Amino acid sequence: MTNYPVLLAGEWREADATGSFQAVDPCTGEAIDESYPVSSRADLEAAVNAAAGAAEALLDLDAGVRASFLDAYADRIDANADEIAERAHIETALPLSPRLRDVELPRTTGQLRQAAAAVREGTWAEVTIDTETNIRARLGPLGGAVAVFGPNNFPLAFNGISGGDFAAAIAAGNPVIAKAHSSHPGTSRLLAQEASAAVEETGLPPAMVQMLYRLSHEDGASLVSHPAIGATGYTGARSSGLTLKAAADGAGKPIYLELSSINPIFILPGALEARGEELVGEYVTSVLMGAGQFCTNPGITVLLKSEATSRFVVAATSGFEEAEPGYLLGERVVSGLGESVAALVASGAELLTGGNPVEGDGFRFQNTLLRISGADFVRQPEALQREAFGNAGLLIEAADEEELVAISGAFEGNLTGCIYSCSEGTDEALYEPIARNLRRQVGRLLNDKMPTGVAVSSAMNHGGPFPATGHPGFTAVGIPGSIRRFAVLECYDNVREERLPVELRNRNPGGGLFRRIDGCWSSEDVSCE
Amino acid sequence: MTNYPVLLAGEWREADATGSFQAVDPCTGEAIDESYPVSSRADLEAAVNAAAGAAEALLDLDAGVRASFLDAYADRIDANADEIAERAHIETALPLSPRLRDVELPRTTGQLRQAAAAVREGTWAEVTIDTETNIRARLGPLGGAVAVFGPNNFPLAFNGISGGDFAAAIAAGNPVIAKAHSSHPGTSRLLAQEASAAVEETGLPPAMVQMLYRLSHEDGASLVSHPAIGATGYTGARSSGLTLKAAADGAGKPIYLELSSINPIFILPGALEARGEELVGEYVTSVLMGAGQFCTNPGITVLLKSEATSRFVVAATSGFEEAEPGYLLGERVVSGLGESVAALVASGAELLTGGNPVEGDGFRFQNTLLRISGADFVRQPEALQREAFGNAGLLIEAADEEELVAISGAFEGNLTGCIYSCSEGTDEALYEPIARNLRRQVGRLLNDKMPTGVAVSSAMNHGGPFPATGHPGFTAVGIPGSIRRFAVLECYDNVREERLPVELRNRNPGGGLFRRIDGCWSSEDVSCE
Repeated sequence: MTNYPVLLAGEWREADATGSFQAVDPCTGEAIDESYPVSSRADLEAAVNAAAGAAEALLDLDAGVRASFLDAYADRIDANADEIAERAHIETALPLSPRLRDVELPRTTGQLRQAAAAVREGTWAEVTIDTETNIRARLGPLGGAVAVFGPNNFPLAFNGISGGDFAAAIAAGNPVIAKAHSSHPGTSRLLAQEASAAVEETGLPPAMVQMLYRLSHEDGASLVSHPAIGATGYTGARSSGLTLKAAADGAGKPIYLELSSINPIFILPGALEARGEELVGEYVTSVLMGAGQFCTNPGITVLLKSEATSRFVVAATSGFEEAEPGYLLGERVVSGLGESVAALVASGAELLTGGNPVEGDGFRFQNTLLRISGADFVRQPEALQREAFGNAGLLIEAADEEELVAISGAFEGNLTGCIYSCSEGTDEALYEPIARNLRRQVGRLLNDKMPTGVAVSSAMNHGGPFPATGHPGFTAVGIPGSIRRFAVLECYDNVREERLPVELRNRNPGGGLFRRIDGCWSSEDVSCE
Repeated sequence: MTNYPVLLAGEWREADATGSFQAVDPCTGEAIDESYPVSSRADLEAAVNAAAGAAEALLDLDAGVRASFLDAYADRIDANADEIAERAHIETALPLSPRLRDVELPRTTGQLRQAAAAVREGTWAEVTIDTETNIRARLGPLGGAVAVFGPNNFPLAFNGISGGDFAAAIAAGNPVIAKAHSSHPGTSRLLAQEASAAVEETGLPPAMVQMLYRLSHEDGASLVSHPAIGATGYTGARSSGLTLKAAADGAGKPIYLELSSINPIFILPGALEARGEELVGEYVTSVLMGAGQFCTNPGITVLLKSEATSRFVVAATSGFEEAEPGYLLGERVVSGLGESVAALVASGAELLTGGNPVEGDGFRFQNTLLRISGADFVRQPEALQREAFGNAGLLIEAADEEELVAISGAFEGNLTGCIYSCSEGTDEALYEPIARNLRRQVGRLLNDKMPTGVAVSSAMNHGGPFPATGHPGFTAVGIPGSIRRFAVLECYDNVREERLPVELRNRNPGGGLFRRIDGCWSSEDVSCE
């Protein structure tokens, strides 16, 4: 089999390959009949250099060209939606509906279009003008490529070639070098074809969008620490992410990571009493959705020991048993889930149901529910908050309110934390200390709502304290926040007006741009005396 | 001699010391008759734990208390300005006027008051409300101390206990653990006394402000990577900063560094022709100001070979020879400057004047000017952009315009870059490519102005690409930018309104807070349907 070519320096060209690989159909466990290259260091160098040229060339183009590209790319994905979604379905076994075709794909094009709108609107750049000193600042491009490493679990909305980091990096004015995830190269290829066509159609510099299918670990580290790179966005497993982080940190290159999260849920007694059955349904649905392969999957749920809790446990166990286990993304997900469940059991967790791979073809694991006492959890919180990526959940039963609060203070950094409470106020005394503890440890604090939905909202935080991500001040989802990660702060001190970027000049470009002028947000011109 | 006590957990207490040290008067080279402790790991642990408690206690206080503290502290510094400035003068040999008493001290209190105003005004927190999804976000406190390491060269405006990082960290709602610089412990002590009194006077949690005088390198690394710390601000030498960065990065703790910068200046031919004499004066003043011990000191100046340039070189050499060398901050600054000058000469630079320590008492070095050809610079730009911290400058003479542009692309990350050009337009063709190159490498791009003045402006960027700082998106000077570094992104998803921080509720608190509501900056209430 011949390898598919890589998208490098504006053209599809044969990779300088050190090897090749095939994707695997998770439903059968069999290799898909297409071959993709593992790129060498030479491909990496070519990509980084071409991107630096594109970054330079982009300075001569109006920002509107980036916006046009993002819109055109979204249109092209829409026009080829069936083929792309179908291919993603084959490579990931995630359902077409409700999921790839009708949820994730529209979300992906929605993100691209929101990024386009943000480029046109311009507020993301936080233009700041101090008239007294004639100092002016904006966020501007990094001057080199953003390397984007996508994860296995969102082949469209987080794909290195089409996802949120991609959209944000382009919006901020940076070329992207996408590292496709090895589990869905065909999906990435179809997307990259549309991206490449949209680049050509809209006149972006050809090397603004490049894609390699796979790199050695060593070359991945070289990419994120390359002198000519701007920054990196990475979504994926913690161990690989930390290796890339060490390389980027050592070179002083920004890297934004989304690593792992167990997303604790607290169901307070009043809520359980008032709507226990409903909550069982929400819980089971959220944990098993997409076979549990969500970054915001609720891995740990904490309840106060009671009869209502016992009923919840019984009903949740039944719910897990009755649901058909979904397919997992790969063999490594199955074995990893088995290892995590075994480790939790070894740390004292009781297996309520599941615990083993499903026999037969393909990659499946039994829906798995575990339970542990609050006292046991508090004794070894590190071991017991090990992420079990997939269709598994751990329930913690606290002996009393004090223990419930103590548990809420024992988590490491997470993307989300959620508290269900009674709407009549009987849970307020517990809510307060638990919310305080969670607030420090999570990026997004929810009330009465499972965390698995991640709205692409300007106020979203899909981020959180380390080790959920690498920095607690940034979000990977939500515009304009996600764009600002891939920018530098450009200050102009006494620079002559005609030499300034248009948005820093006295006249408000387009007339509607919000700028911070002498401390106030305004869409007026700067008045010159 | 008994050691002075440290400010720990809200009281002045005897340090758990592993040693002691004395400051040295740079004018005489003699130790000052006061002894300060080197704190042990036990002091560090006590400080971090007390700070975590203060961070928690602060959640129960209105933001106005932080503002009152910052104002009260500024007032107390003003009331004791003569004593503080005089002490700083003794410990640093920096002039009282124009500098410590009439420039740096007012700048310091100005920064504290600007931070207080920013806390009251609130826009720094970037409140974002999405009414459709009912997701709301703001920047909030880190939940643990900010460790602030101040440098030797600004005993007031960058002091760990009173400088910009201190003001920003408190404004964002974080306790501070200041690590005073060992060269001016007495100044830091006087400031800390006022800070401590202001804490008590305004009712901040007592451990919001703590100060240790010195830590071992190992304990410094433990502090910035401590599980209970929030973040670190560091201004100082590159080698120590990189050691702290490695420790903080490894623990996933944010660290903001300001390390080193040679701040290239380009004087284009038209400008030199039109106002050569004036430029010599500006240049000599800027390089020798404060004996060259500014982060933004112009270390390298680039000119195009010509008769006007020859005149500039001769006049600058005379200017350096005629000016009395200032005192340097310490013996290590003298030896470090000597080493750097020797290394530049070894790399091919020609010594035009100076090059040796001044004989006699105290820490002085001859005003030192070096020159090298553009061709030699471009051959080994790394070696030749070695920072020579102190009263020294390197002139580069480019053979032609092409070489001038090539030089502008050879710098590593810097705080500032400056271009002097003719106002009649004859330099425009050269300006464009040089500005493009510098823009990528500097945080602040200046026209026709020396970089040594750093206005505390909302649009200021006192930051720049690595290795000038650790991240190209942040500034250490300028409000609100500097505050945002010490914050986490807090998202509230579907959280009941009465449980939200006041600034996230529907009603605009105070009525004038700018919030981004559904994408538009507004000071209105959120309308509820």
